[in-house]
Amino acid sequence: MPAPRTAVADPTLTRPDWTRGSPRDPARLWLDKNENWDPELNRVVAEVMRALPAEAYCTYPESAQLYAKLAAWAGVEPGNLMLAAGSDGVIRSVFEAYVEPGDTVIHTVPTFAMYSVYSRMYGARVVGIEYERGSDGPVLAIDRLLTAIRTEGPKLVCLPNPDSPTGTVVPPEQLESIIAAAGEAGALMLVDEAYHPFHPDSVVPAIARYPHLVVCRSTGKAWGMAGIRIGYGVASPEVAKILHKVRPMYEVGAVAVHAFEAMLDHADAMRASVARLEAGKALFLAEMETLGFKVLKGAGNFCHVAFGAHAAAIHARLDGRVMYRKDFAEPCLAGYSRFSAATPELFAPVIALIRAAIQGNRP
Amino acid sequence: MPAPRTAVADPTLTRPDWTRGSPRDPARLWLDKNENWDPELNRVVAEVMRALPAEAYCTYPESAQLYAKLAAWAGVEPGNLMLAAGSDGVIRSVFEAYVEPGDTVIHTVPTFAMYSVYSRMYGARVVGIEYERGSDGPVLAIDRLLTAIRTEGPKLVCLPNPDSPTGTVVPPEQLESIIAAAGEAGALMLVDEAYHPFHPDSVVPAIARYPHLVVCRSTGKAWGMAGIRIGYGVASPEVAKILHKVRPMYEVGAVAVHAFEAMLDHADAMRASVARLEAGKALFLAEMETLGFKVLKGAGNFCHVAFGAHAAAIHARLDGRVMYRKDFAEPCLAGYSRFSAATPELFAPVIALIRAAIQGNRP
Repeated sequence: MPAPRTAVADPTLTRPDWTRGSPRDPARLWLDKNENWDPELNRVVAEVMRALPAEAYCTYPESAQLYAKLAAWAGVEPGNLMLAAGSDGVIRSVFEAYVEPGDTVIHTVPTFAMYSVYSRMYGARVVGIEYERGSDGPVLAIDRLLTAIRTEGPKLVCLPNPDSPTGTVVPPEQLESIIAAAGEAGALMLVDEAYHPFHPDSVVPAIARYPHLVVCRSTGKAWGMAGIRIGYGVASPEVAKILHKVRPMYEVGAVAVHAFEAMLDHADAMRASVARLEAGKALFLAEMETLGFKVLKGAGNFCHVAFGAHAAAIHARLDGRVMYRKDFAEPCLAGYSRFSAATPELFAPVIALIRAAIQGNRP
Repeated sequence: MPAPRTAVADPTLTRPDWTRGSPRDPARLWLDKNENWDPELNRVVAEVMRALPAEAYCTYPESAQLYAKLAAWAGVEPGNLMLAAGSDGVIRSVFEAYVEPGDTVIHTVPTFAMYSVYSRMYGARVVGIEYERGSDGPVLAIDRLLTAIRTEGPKLVCLPNPDSPTGTVVPPEQLESIIAAAGEAGALMLVDEAYHPFHPDSVVPAIARYPHLVVCRSTGKAWGMAGIRIGYGVASPEVAKILHKVRPMYEVGAVAVHAFEAMLDHADAMRASVARLEAGKALFLAEMETLGFKVLKGAGNFCHVAFGAHAAAIHARLDGRVMYRKDFAEPCLAGYSRFSAATPELFAPVIALIRAAIQGNRP
């Protein structure tokens, strides 16, 4: 009696082994996942979490109040919103509600890993638009993207803005032309604003004009709430209603609902944290440029440094102390290493280690 | 530029309006959703939540340690497990990984609402096995279920044990014959043990013998962690691997991972809470029988009372004070009202209100 055949569109899809991995070593600096480790914001989140009403732990959620509060904060109506387990939950719902086997999905390459995973999970044909390598970092050929939208018959076009790991943004006018082209092609357009408001521009106000537009946002970056796992999508009421059709029993739990509701009263703390992380990033990049390294500032809560001939020495010195994404293999970022944004205080020892590595590396 | 057509198999599927609802009024007793409001267990969960390490709030999860600890607790291997956002998350993954449009799903009627929702979402034909009305409550005709499994060509057979809202259980030998029949029919068999260990029997040990068996469990009932939204599935390594293929970016967040890991050290507090709720249920039902009402003890953390001619007076008296599920319409439970299990202390005012209603109702 074997188990039946799976219905997963691409059964060769593999995912990371869930039985491996170890807890975070608090002695290390974790700058590899674009989390927000700002101690001041973390203190605010901790206070909110420790002040949760006791019933938050033992009850199923009542979310309408959060929907109303979040709608006011985002400048939309509750009927435009969908809460989910992270912005990833919104992305997945978009695939689930709109993508059938054989449909075409257009997304950038490289980008957030789940666009490729969900495309395979739901049996989509992917048209990947690869970033080109420019002298100042990855470049998206907007004309190629527009041509693909017009000629490939996509069901879904996905564009994180800023994109990750490239850190690139599409300027507002061009972004609007991409959204419009997707609509004309009969596609749903997903703009992933996970890094909002590190990059303050948003297409949320365009929701009113484009019924085929979905925007997703995370609380894992600016809000410092990655562990609470709550994100949201914004869409026309028509699309929001369809995304809600595929929601689980509850989109998110009562703890997440209470926590996000309380955190919306601390949007100033979130913005102050964004400012601290921007300051830390600016300091780090200025130091790296002083050391002669090419850097990419990027528009998300992360940045890139090309360590060049010092790469091996620096990686060795940071090993076991600082976690970061080493030397991308993708042509558009080849030779660059990525660091999540941190406060100036958190970056100070990283800078010191890099300086020490260079000195030790001199002939 | 309208939005494209949805890929949802049954686009007529509707879900509750997310913009409506209000926060729980703490002055009421919430006995309508089978949550665990035991104050003593709630205090343990609150302590665990308030002692979470600060990085639980701002990080993406590392779950391998919880998988190992949970596996030891459940008597299986980490490779048998899948964490999810509640047992509902496991159920959904089973549908997603195995059910294609046109497939047949067999489930009991009435049962947990999401079996019907997911069947429509994934385009399944449902063969519903209706509970019959017996003198001692709903009765599942096992022979009809077995015949359906053998003749309807199911891809998936779903059976909560205990079932909800009926509170019924299938005895171990018959349950094994159902599991075996599903396997012989080439179906996946999902046994939903959301109410474990209110009902202490489990088919988890049978996983080793039945590669087509999946068991899901909740932490929302016995563990008092409904708000934290973490459940798990147990299956053969082969099926677990397939369920993991359709998992989101992260199955659950770091807060939930840390909380459940810590709570596993308090399994004694969970068991003590189950005992308190069983005592409360026994007290409540004994009082109801004293008052002359027919009761159904059931095997989950809930029970049923048929208020008969006093129903209207009792509902009026409890209105706005006690939330519960009034007068089922389904034939097998017609006339019964359902109350979640609570401690003797929490049930005392409910009993007093019911007594008062009856006295007020006397001619």
